[in-house]
Amino acid sequence: MTERIVLAYSGGLDTSVAIGWIAEETGAEVVAVAVDVGQGGEDLDTIRKRALDCGAVEAVVTDARDEFADQYCLPALQANALYMERYPLVSALSRPVIVKHLVDAAKYHGATTVSHGCTGKGNDQVRFEVGIGALAPDLKVVAPVRDFAWTREKAIAWAHDRNLPIDQTKSSPYSVDQNVWGRAVETGFLEDIWNAPIEDVYSYTDNPADPRDADEVTITFDKGVPVAIDGETVTVLQAIQQLNRRAGAQGIGRLDMVEDRLVGIKSREVYEAPGAIALITAHQELENVTVERDLARFKRQVEQRWAELVYDGLWFSPLKDALDTFVAKTQEHVSGDIRMTLHGGRAVVTGRRSEQSLYDFNLATYDEGDTFDQSLAKGFVQLWGLPSKIAAKRDQHHHG
Amino acid sequence: MTERIVLAYSGGLDTSVAIGWIAEETGAEVVAVAVDVGQGGEDLDTIRKRALDCGAVEAVVTDARDEFADQYCLPALQANALYMERYPLVSALSRPVIVKHLVDAAKYHGATTVSHGCTGKGNDQVRFEVGIGALAPDLKVVAPVRDFAWTREKAIAWAHDRNLPIDQTKSSPYSVDQNVWGRAVETGFLEDIWNAPIEDVYSYTDNPADPRDADEVTITFDKGVPVAIDGETVTVLQAIQQLNRRAGAQGIGRLDMVEDRLVGIKSREVYEAPGAIALITAHQELENVTVERDLARFKRQVEQRWAELVYDGLWFSPLKDALDTFVAKTQEHVSGDIRMTLHGGRAVVTGRRSEQSLYDFNLATYDEGDTFDQSLAKGFVQLWGLPSKIAAKRDQHHHG
Amino acid sequence: MTERIVLAYSGGLDTSVAIGWIAEETGAEVVAVAVDVGQGGEDLDTIRKRALDCGAVEAVVTDARDEFADQYCLPALQANALYMERYPLVSALSRPVIVKHLVDAAKYHGATTVSHGCTGKGNDQVRFEVGIGALAPDLKVVAPVRDFAWTREKAIAWAHDRNLPIDQTKSSPYSVDQNVWGRAVETGFLEDIWNAPIEDVYSYTDNPADPRDADEVTITFDKGVPVAIDGETVTVLQAIQQLNRRAGAQGIGRLDMVEDRLVGIKSREVYEAPGAIALITAHQELENVTVERDLARFKRQVEQRWAELVYDGLWFSPLKDALDTFVAKTQEHVSGDIRMTLHGGRAVVTGRRSEQSLYDFNLATYDEGDTFDQSLAKGFVQLWGLPSKIAAKRDQHHHG
Amino acid sequence: MTERIVLAYSGGLDTSVAIGWIAEETGAEVVAVAVDVGQGGEDLDTIRKRALDCGAVEAVVTDARDEFADQYCLPALQANALYMERYPLVSALSRPVIVKHLVDAAKYHGATTVSHGCTGKGNDQVRFEVGIGALAPDLKVVAPVRDFAWTREKAIAWAHDRNLPIDQTKSSPYSVDQNVWGRAVETGFLEDIWNAPIEDVYSYTDNPADPRDADEVTITFDKGVPVAIDGETVTVLQAIQQLNRRAGAQGIGRLDMVEDRLVGIKSREVYEAPGAIALITAHQELENVTVERDLARFKRQVEQRWAELVYDGLWFSPLKDALDTFVAKTQEHVSGDIRMTLHGGRAVVTGRRSEQSLYDFNLATYDEGDTFDQSLAKGFVQLWGLPSKIAAKRDQHHHG
Repeated sequence: MTERIVLAYSGGLDTSVAIGWIAEETGAEVVAVAVDVGQGGEDLDTIRKRALDCGAVEAVVTDARDEFADQYCLPALQANALYMERYPLVSALSRPVIVKHLVDAAKYHGATTVSHGCTGKGNDQVRFEVGIGALAPDLKVVAPVRDFAWTREKAIAWAHDRNLPIDQTKSSPYSVDQNVWGRAVETGFLEDIWNAPIEDVYSYTDNPADPRDADEVTITFDKGVPVAIDGETVTVLQAIQQLNRRAGAQGIGRLDMVEDRLVGIKSREVYEAPGAIALITAHQELENVTVERDLARFKRQVEQRWAELVYDGLWFSPLKDALDTFVAKTQEHVSGDIRMTLHGGRAVVTGRRSEQSLYDFNLATYDEGDTFDQSLAKGFVQLWGLPSKIAAKRDQHHHG
Repeated sequence: MTERIVLAYSGGLDTSVAIGWIAEETGAEVVAVAVDVGQGGEDLDTIRKRALDCGAVEAVVTDARDEFADQYCLPALQANALYMERYPLVSALSRPVIVKHLVDAAKYHGATTVSHGCTGKGNDQVRFEVGIGALAPDLKVVAPVRDFAWTREKAIAWAHDRNLPIDQTKSSPYSVDQNVWGRAVETGFLEDIWNAPIEDVYSYTDNPADPRDADEVTITFDKGVPVAIDGETVTVLQAIQQLNRRAGAQGIGRLDMVEDRLVGIKSREVYEAPGAIALITAHQELENVTVERDLARFKRQVEQRWAELVYDGLWFSPLKDALDTFVAKTQEHVSGDIRMTLHGGRAVVTGRRSEQSLYDFNLATYDEGDTFDQSLAKGFVQLWGLPSKIAAKRDQHHHG
Repeated sequence: MTERIVLAYSGGLDTSVAIGWIAEETGAEVVAVAVDVGQGGEDLDTIRKRALDCGAVEAVVTDARDEFADQYCLPALQANALYMERYPLVSALSRPVIVKHLVDAAKYHGATTVSHGCTGKGNDQVRFEVGIGALAPDLKVVAPVRDFAWTREKAIAWAHDRNLPIDQTKSSPYSVDQNVWGRAVETGFLEDIWNAPIEDVYSYTDNPADPRDADEVTITFDKGVPVAIDGETVTVLQAIQQLNRRAGAQGIGRLDMVEDRLVGIKSREVYEAPGAIALITAHQELENVTVERDLARFKRQVEQRWAELVYDGLWFSPLKDALDTFVAKTQEHVSGDIRMTLHGGRAVVTGRRSEQSLYDFNLATYDEGDTFDQSLAKGFVQLWGLPSKIAAKRDQHHHG
Repeated sequence: MTERIVLAYSGGLDTSVAIGWIAEETGAEVVAVAVDVGQGGEDLDTIRKRALDCGAVEAVVTDARDEFADQYCLPALQANALYMERYPLVSALSRPVIVKHLVDAAKYHGATTVSHGCTGKGNDQVRFEVGIGALAPDLKVVAPVRDFAWTREKAIAWAHDRNLPIDQTKSSPYSVDQNVWGRAVETGFLEDIWNAPIEDVYSYTDNPADPRDADEVTITFDKGVPVAIDGETVTVLQAIQQLNRRAGAQGIGRLDMVEDRLVGIKSREVYEAPGAIALITAHQELENVTVERDLARFKRQVEQRWAELVYDGLWFSPLKDALDTFVAKTQEHVSGDIRMTLHGGRAVVTGRRSEQSLYDFNLATYDEGDTFDQSLAKGFVQLWGLPSKIAAKRDQHHHG
């Protein structure tokens, strides 16, 4: 039986040409798999048809947007996941869900190999291959761009020689990856890190400096899940989509940073993630109100590690699974409303309201009704500072 | 010899009245100590005179603004210190420098006790008393508000009975603490955490929503120290002051959050810290460019712990000292320029430039000149994912 | 209705006298509660009778040994909990289970207050009171030794005046706390930290220096739970008891250390925990075989924090609960056999065997059958070291 | 000019044959570099002569034992470095000092390449190559065993064909790496992890089960450095050597464990490190006496990370350097005497004495002289437990 290779298929020039090229190089049949994670663009049927036109024996297209929102974006939101305290893991989140569908397709269609179009200097090759290794340790992987120095130029020439139905006119100076959680952009002039991004780079967000009216939004969470916006019930996907629209219209969620890649280099990245940033901002403040102090402090360490793991391609790993159980436990009481003003590039919390609140007005107030017993503080302060005091006495004795 | 008590003196009604009250209650002589940490307001001579008028035997006034900027704000900047990832430790930073001057004055003037006006439910009592215990373990502390339930109302009545020269007309609904690093505001209506702050709460910042032109600034750091702004050499104090002005004019640095106090309760706090937020934003990005990845990842944990310690009153503690040596080491290469746009409440980095940069254009670029050897990646990816893969094989064997 | 106070009752002199004293001082009825956590000594009926003889209106005695083993010792074992990397939390573990029974009794018998006999300089007061606060926030606490300076001398005099049936002849120079997980000893001459313990201090362990034959034991774990010893099924309690006997006979589990108390002082403690140390040693090595590397590394941080929390009296706290979910998740594959030699004070693992093993002979061997592809290593090494190498180039450029 | 390659030379068969083989394969001149890190065996002159006999153009032999002890073992001691809480990093410590001498020799003798004999599945290749990359980013590396599948069998055949003066009779079933800090052994029958080590495996330690008299030793530390044993001044090297002898004679420091290698597999390792384990045991307890609690708690996290980094080949890395500054700071007060009993495989601390002690007899004692103010505890306990209590109230309200 002819061997089969599952190809991660985007519908674009490179992967369309790759169908034929891989088949020719390897003698295998190519199964194209396209996964909709909210990247927009053409509809799935068009993509499916093109794959078959380009020579795929099978073309699998899947609308995974709800799955992506529920099982990938939501855990990231609950972990307030910001790599390097800033980047909400846009591409890093979509890779595992795509991997899952590639592996499912490989099993279903009897393929022994998975192919992806990542380069050898980025993070995505790691996310694809480590994910595949964790879900299907026996599948082989081939990465033409990295392993065979397959380039866009070669792809165009190859397609041209064979009269493939490829449209090269849509060429763009930008290398873009986008999904419902956000959008990542790389381009030549930004590789000079002294250059500022230009307005043309952005697509999910309007210019925050444009004059406009503010937008007020109230997000309701139930155990860490956004369940309503302005009182209207929403799915997680709808919550992200609506906030992409509303926060995007206010220029919220633009990021421009130098980032530490897993492969050991620093790169310059520009992102847009209006919905993600608005949701994380709201979620963090609701946690401030509902999560106990020591738990919140430790969770911040877990959040950092969670973001590093996912960035580093270890979504399907034992540590990631165990951190997920921790994070899930912390969400038990993260229920309530957060009111925010979206305006001029800023998502600002202006009110919080929760039946699970640990904020106790009577303990906090300096006005009438104060129930805090201040007499307890003297002893607390003394014993809290005792280790430092004993050390200070010792030091004075020796240095004095 | 009559005992002497050093009083942390602000010049305001409460501590002015406290001079006489403490003297009367204890029979001790009161030495008033006022420290200028950039809180603004009256000049030091006026404050000094008032203390003497109110019955202090000595009144010590000190301009500690440069000391505060160089020895307290700068370490916080180098630690990117944000408690709960948001609050730049405005009050928490000024307490230790005030403590230092109180202790110096106690030694110089032969006092056995230090007195402060903090309540028993806040963090500042801890910062004062733990700091005093660490610098002068033998000094006693008296906190009239906490220990004797001394209140503003009692103070006014007491002053009235004695015809003290106290002006009560400046009464304000806000409880404010401010210094050059920022400003903290508490007030009754904000104790309802569903209420938004009103514009009247703010003083260091203009309304970010006001239309205005953007301001572009370039900050130069040398080993983690801001040394020039737009090419003009500045001291740390001048850097903070200038950015307070310029970032404040753009509405940058407003914070509104529910916060975990050391004494075990949650409280609602509003802060303004335009200069601090602008400087930390610039410093973080320069670190992204100049600090190696593993070091940067560990530093984030150190930063969190550093902020917690300082928030929790442990500035003068062995762990804080040891973390400082770590942070200092990380700053060796944090030199270069950061260009930012200040506008509409946002401080946005648009360029970075450093002779110490670890960003290597030739390794990062996808264009000509690429020197990254992509053939190395395959082996890296395989071994990076090997532990997860072995675990996955084991799990499939048992669950499959 | 007369108020009721639940008293943590040991059956010894101090708490026996306390029954009457508390009743007299407060006018309340005293409910005595004794909990068997494996401390040995008199049987529960005798203790019950004595409490009633001493004036308790009710006396509740409970055999909580299995509950203690299953719900308190087992989580500690799974967390490899060693405070300061040495102390297996003997007393710290028993306090929460006692608290639980005190609170249950208070609810059942309508008491409003709980009383314990701890001093004001130890950790146990914290464990009792924080535990009670977390389980029954409305219960009051009274600690006669701390709050009323009630001493053993006063107790004896008080009992003598009233002709109470108290036997003072069993006076011991040692202050001992013991349960099935171990034994803690404090005594005057050990307060000089240059003094060595003498053989008389120990009770759970024989002298490790005594000549004897070695004992070989195989412990079987199922998902982190010890389920069999030498092939015989055991409960957790039986596992601890049997290993207390067998490891104790070999002098295993003695500890002598200077320890950081929560109340801010350092103290000198001597412990014996033969079963706990043997079990933890076995469990750690089984984890080495069955837990993936990154998970194991992070778990070590969690273990340290878990031990600190429990030592610090925060058993019933949100962070402890969340760490428990993490630890539980890590135990999924901790199944298999550990063979150990118990001899001369040492529990030494000599073999491990697990169907869940991640040790892969074919990847590990240097002999025939090696399946590790060494060609992958070159790329891995290069990219693993790339960040350091780039930093080194930068540094040489600037320092060179 | 003929190219030159620096070869890490042990004097043994493999590297002796490698001299000629590398020369032949590459056409380069080989400079052999042997570094004495206390591995024992032949004297350096003999080794030097053999290298030249085997065809090296230069042979550099260096006694680096004091350098190794002072600059590599001592930082590990101060970090209480135990990988996976057990392994004192024997081989991991010697690689960087060897790397340093290889790089020095390469610079001095104008070599462009360094060659080492490590395999592609161990940690040492990483330690060599990452170290070389960090010290001399432009040096190339060649690893014949890994890169050219060069094996012992091929080496013997190759030497036989050329009549090289190689003695094959010393063939051993054990693969051993040893230095003054310890000894690592791998061998075929231990690759079955159910097999126990046999006595023949060990060389630094006598059988702990042999009857013998105990040995009492007092180690004096000054700022974390062992400076005297039983009152006699020693260098660090002498301290390790003497304790290797004395603790080794008592069977102390044997380790047998399954270990997580950096390259992603688990391996079984047997170690002996009598001096290292005795010194670390003493040093830890002296820290318990002299280091403040919060600092000690954080240092434990640093210690774990330090050990991981060094194990993972990152000795020469920015994070390792920064952690070193932290550790160095913590040693300021680690001065005093530790008395230990060495006996039957156990190094047991029996006394500690320090002018820098934070143990305060008067605060700790339960006898006369107690200066601890127990009245402070009540307030401390209340506020310490307040966050848990508030959370408990919230939870009861919602679950109750």
